Amino acid sequence: MTDDKARSTSKGGHAPLLLRMSILSALALTAVLPSQALAAPGQMAGFSPEKEKWQRSYEKAFAGMVSKESVAKFSKDLSVRPGVVGTPGNAANVDYAVRELKKAGLKPEVKTYDVYMSVPKKIAVTQTYPQKRELQVMENLPKGTRYASDVIPGYNAYSASGTVEAEIVYANYGRPEDFAELEKRGISVEGKIVITRYGANFRGVKPEQAEKRGAIGMLIYSDPADDGYSKGIVYPDGPWRPADAIQRGSILYIFRYPGDPLTPGEPSTEGTKRLDPAEAASLPGIPTTPLSYGEARPLLEAMEGEEAPASWQGGLPFTYKIGPGKTKVRIDLNIEYKNQPVNDVIVRIPGAKHPEQTVVIGAHRDAWAYGTSDNTSGWTTTLEIARVLGEMVKKGWQPDRTIVLAGWDGEEYGLLGSVEWAEEHRKELTENAVAYINMDGTGGQFFGAGGVPSLKQLIYDVTKEVKEPRSGSSIYDDWFVRSGRKEPSVEQLGSGSDYTPFIQHLGIPSMDLGFGVSGGLYHSAYDNQDLMDRFIDPGYEHQAAGSQLVGIAALRLANAEVIPLQYSAYAADVVSLLEEFASKGTLGVDLALVIAQAREWQAASTELESLAQRMIADGVTAEEQSRLEQVNQALMKQERDLIVSEGLPSRPWYKHQIWAPGLTTGYAAQPLPALAEAVQAGDAAAVKQAADRLAAVLKKATETARAAQ
Amino acid sequence: MTDDKARSTSKGGHAPLLLRMSILSALALTAVLPSQALAAPGQMAGFSPEKEKWQRSYEKAFAGMVSKESVAKFSKDLSVRPGVVGTPGNAANVDYAVRELKKAGLKPEVKTYDVYMSVPKKIAVTQTYPQKRELQVMENLPKGTRYASDVIPGYNAYSASGTVEAEIVYANYGRPEDFAELEKRGISVEGKIVITRYGANFRGVKPEQAEKRGAIGMLIYSDPADDGYSKGIVYPDGPWRPADAIQRGSILYIFRYPGDPLTPGEPSTEGTKRLDPAEAASLPGIPTTPLSYGEARPLLEAMEGEEAPASWQGGLPFTYKIGPGKTKVRIDLNIEYKNQPVNDVIVRIPGAKHPEQTVVIGAHRDAWAYGTSDNTSGWTTTLEIARVLGEMVKKGWQPDRTIVLAGWDGEEYGLLGSVEWAEEHRKELTENAVAYINMDGTGGQFFGAGGVPSLKQLIYDVTKEVKEPRSGSSIYDDWFVRSGRKEPSVEQLGSGSDYTPFIQHLGIPSMDLGFGVSGGLYHSAYDNQDLMDRFIDPGYEHQAAGSQLVGIAALRLANAEVIPLQYSAYAADVVSLLEEFASKGTLGVDLALVIAQAREWQAASTELESLAQRMIADGVTAEEQSRLEQVNQALMKQERDLIVSEGLPSRPWYKHQIWAPGLTTGYAAQPLPALAEAVQAGDAAAVKQAADRLAAVLKKATETARAAQ
Repeated sequence: MTDDKARSTSKGGHAPLLLRMSILSALALTAVLPSQALAAPGQMAGFSPEKEKWQRSYEKAFAGMVSKESVAKFSKDLSVRPGVVGTPGNAANVDYAVRELKKAGLKPEVKTYDVYMSVPKKIAVTQTYPQKRELQVMENLPKGTRYASDVIPGYNAYSASGTVEAEIVYANYGRPEDFAELEKRGISVEGKIVITRYGANFRGVKPEQAEKRGAIGMLIYSDPADDGYSKGIVYPDGPWRPADAIQRGSILYIFRYPGDPLTPGEPSTEGTKRLDPAEAASLPGIPTTPLSYGEARPLLEAMEGEEAPASWQGGLPFTYKIGPGKTKVRIDLNIEYKNQPVNDVIVRIPGAKHPEQTVVIGAHRDAWAYGTSDNTSGWTTTLEIARVLGEMVKKGWQPDRTIVLAGWDGEEYGLLGSVEWAEEHRKELTENAVAYINMDGTGGQFFGAGGVPSLKQLIYDVTKEVKEPRSGSSIYDDWFVRSGRKEPSVEQLGSGSDYTPFIQHLGIPSMDLGFGVSGGLYHSAYDNQDLMDRFIDPGYEHQAAGSQLVGIAALRLANAEVIPLQYSAYAADVVSLLEEFASKGTLGVDLALVIAQAREWQAASTELESLAQRMIADGVTAEEQSRLEQVNQALMKQERDLIVSEGLPSRPWYKHQIWAPGLTTGYAAQPLPALAEAVQAGDAAAVKQAADRLAAVLKKATETARAAQ
Repeated sequence: MTDDKARSTSKGGHAPLLLRMSILSALALTAVLPSQALAAPGQMAGFSPEKEKWQRSYEKAFAGMVSKESVAKFSKDLSVRPGVVGTPGNAANVDYAVRELKKAGLKPEVKTYDVYMSVPKKIAVTQTYPQKRELQVMENLPKGTRYASDVIPGYNAYSASGTVEAEIVYANYGRPEDFAELEKRGISVEGKIVITRYGANFRGVKPEQAEKRGAIGMLIYSDPADDGYSKGIVYPDGPWRPADAIQRGSILYIFRYPGDPLTPGEPSTEGTKRLDPAEAASLPGIPTTPLSYGEARPLLEAMEGEEAPASWQGGLPFTYKIGPGKTKVRIDLNIEYKNQPVNDVIVRIPGAKHPEQTVVIGAHRDAWAYGTSDNTSGWTTTLEIARVLGEMVKKGWQPDRTIVLAGWDGEEYGLLGSVEWAEEHRKELTENAVAYINMDGTGGQFFGAGGVPSLKQLIYDVTKEVKEPRSGSSIYDDWFVRSGRKEPSVEQLGSGSDYTPFIQHLGIPSMDLGFGVSGGLYHSAYDNQDLMDRFIDPGYEHQAAGSQLVGIAALRLANAEVIPLQYSAYAADVVSLLEEFASKGTLGVDLALVIAQAREWQAASTELESLAQRMIADGVTAEEQSRLEQVNQALMKQERDLIVSEGLPSRPWYKHQIWAPGLTTGYAAQPLPALAEAVQAGDAAAVKQAADRLAAVLKKATETARAAQ
């Protein structure tokens, strides 16, 4: 008899991929700029020919001074000691950064907020049936590991404290559709502990979904199919997750609001009124804690009940079942809640012409343990940019606008430092922020970017200026070839990093640039210097390239005569989003007027860009200079026009009408969030309201663009 | 930092599939016949209205007499004892079948061939580095298992005998593209033992590919990702492969020629000259033996060298590496080669009007061990059809044409019994065979079919007549809904079962009908009665439905006034195949004339079918009767026109110009094989020759269709 499984020959080899890549390499050579370019071919967007020359020498000098040795030293010095917010290691890293920035002639400031935070006192998980077994909640760090006692156990920040014991139910990734599958099968999680695997969504989504359905506790484990041995060789022989490595992480409902859970919308400074924790919509309700796959294995292996669906099967060597039971578990969490300091490190390179206007670069400086990748790499890159800009100031190079560089604290707990700072500086940022550039992971091998559509062309432009160390081509070409598309994708911004307060709360054009990691040690105690040196960024070349790239992007934004924000592309994307949305049904609400408004914005912004382009085409006269100020004000303002002060109906802190993190994804963006949530709720009146509000913000942006012409 | 792997939300849940199925169910209600139907709607293809009435009562009586209790009894009686060709258990099953057929009033014949065969005397595999370990080559059958001593060890029939010891290299599925990947990485298999997993191709392809590249031995193991715990719960708790279960199987190069390796093209009867084994092109050259995943695991786990590509990773709980070594293995095979008897059981239900014309139903009756699924189920089904037809003959129901039912022996070794029988009956079959229906596995849950395009409509028609036991709908509707297509797919015939000598050597229209198994115990000692009773076909309802289905198909072919072979559909498929082929490039050889010829055939066969349809539309006159004979002769002959006596350039035994098994797939079909192989070889002259030959056979078929009009 024929083996059915052998009949199919569809399992692909590697040749087709390679073939595709070589075709794309050929295409790359003939790639052309999109028709709506901000500048004539060969001309730098936003710069007159004369100014461009100066800018080119500025960028060249800057890039030439970026040093991988310097980056390597920052990285090594900063990842010696675990850097969790509120700990001595974290404080030591503040001192180090301040010292180094001063050495470069800069005047760093430490901005402290007093934030409501969880502190793990006892994390215990016990299997109580079929056998009794205490589970390990810490990696087996090798003897002699420096500061091993500083490593906190595997835990989920902001979990509820308490003790629960129950049978477990397996719920795959803990997505709404996973719980729907359980319901379809008549399997209730009420009174149970749900065990889910990491992945597919922000971890805070999982306990919220489980709690809604009556679960009393949650375990979240790392499945080897997702980031362990099924993906590659595990640490210490390779960069993938070994059996004992735990993914720590916050489960704060950042998709409701990030930052201090007791001060939504306000900075956690003295005098700010705090909510009663019972009223805080971002605080999870059930004890939740993470496990390694080595420890999760006996729990899952002992389970009974129905076989889990094929797509729920993971990489452990048995057939996964759903339960409930018979495995029983006790979760015993003693988690203290108290206010603790969050220390942001801020430094400014003052602008010569428009000191009040700011380009903000930020990276979080806290980590779950040693954090050499996440996010010492991003912070190291930021420090290197600051160091070089500081040295350049000494030599007389000064940007036209102010560049602010920030090392955010407490990002891992829920974007604490960036949110509180942004909330405190709401007024200045709203009036004068040009853009925000985020870095969260720059020590990987593969470039990736997210951002608002107005910044897409700038990202393409600057990635063409910097060499990608692995491939030897430009970052753009390497990115383009790997994308397999007509142009590489600039992802929509959802959440999970510090751009969130800037774009979604304040409406500041934002981008997120970095090099991705091919490995699975995320949030474990093995994200350390050794991993970086051997697997992630040997030679520190990608972190150096990241410094060059982000520095050049900031210098373009800081020095451009016309700020390179392309709202014609933004409006075109909004038209597409609306049309796609309309095609899926909107409960009878007609989106034609909203779409027409988006097209009007597209026309108005195209005209404004064209006007600006003409003004700088051959030098800028004094009269043009003052008109350019108006144009730049309009360019800054259009993104601000897309927010409304009441915020989204589902979550008032999120004020942007085009982008928000999905309520059930957490990381992934939900474009047109109010509209989407109203359709999902089947509420036609809310759809109408969302459409009206969209039309209103698009009209505002259109008027801004028109008024400057 | 955001977890990259959590950003994507593309992992689908189950809701979309269910939705799709319900849409398809709705579609099923409005499904219409293709435009080229052989009969007016509601009319039985090939039957005049009057004859149809008789046929319907014949079919109804037949189906009503099929008994699942009878099927269950056959199955249980025949799978008590392992039935490998040449063993006492196999002989006992011959006696049983003969007895049962005689009980039904029939006159079975046992046809014996004397075939060159391998017999395992000693199968030993030893891991010799890094630790020494003797590997188990037999399942852990529970104490008290009946005839456990009759179960042969895990072995690959027709493997070379001998002892080899070397480091191992992992080569995924052992496909040419897998070896190309090794070459790309500069990893040689010369002097090594290659370890591959089962799946993706016929197992005989693997050692041929390895030997060509200098390997000295091969291990083939069952990976849990392909049919073990990653797929579902393992035996005895479920139907999937446990750690100790071994897939036995032949590695005879059946894609060169099947049957006795020493008598290609001739029956292995007395007086036939035998080849020297050294000249036999179907005999493999290197020691090759199978392993369970329990035994393969320590070999793979101890391997060093490069990490295997992502698509090569299987379901064992570590990262697979390629080697070579450091694992070292000794394979020690003492395999005796000698001639042994192959016993086919043949029984005839003589036709009343055209006793010389035959419809052949066949199923292999040998098995690797107990073989309750593979293929006691198919043979049981065949016996049940014979029993009922026998009982009906007693009551006066006799078909118009002769129905021949066959139980083939030695299929598992390489289609031995069917090939030798077909070769012996070449003349009668060529002149008078109407069609061949194969059954290899009828005890599963999910209907599937393969066949030549001329039989597609008949398959659709008869599957609409029989109820599918699991769903309660017709077999067709269940098949259609699961297919997710406009019509369910009748697969191209490659090889791996007994249709091969009929279609590819003799040009007899063939189909392969059965119910697929959702489980992984293929060719193991656990394919037994208990498995069948609990998981595969509890209640034996699918095997009974299979008897009804195949019996009705045979009765349609045996009784039709116009044999229901639709060459218009066949020709249309050939046109599509040619056009697809032409679009991919044919080294400058123009296929336009071949395509034109196929279209001519399509026109001629359409006209012939239309003529035949008119003749039987309202009864058949005496004059029409004799013209119908000519039409039926032409219908039988057109498939024969597609073979050429010299065979394919690569393998003369394979004579069909449209279908052959792929040389590097073994199971999967390679349509237009001569053309495909010539293009692959880059030989334009051979492409031209293949195109000319195709044009010639299509012309012959066209002329046959025209001549009968």
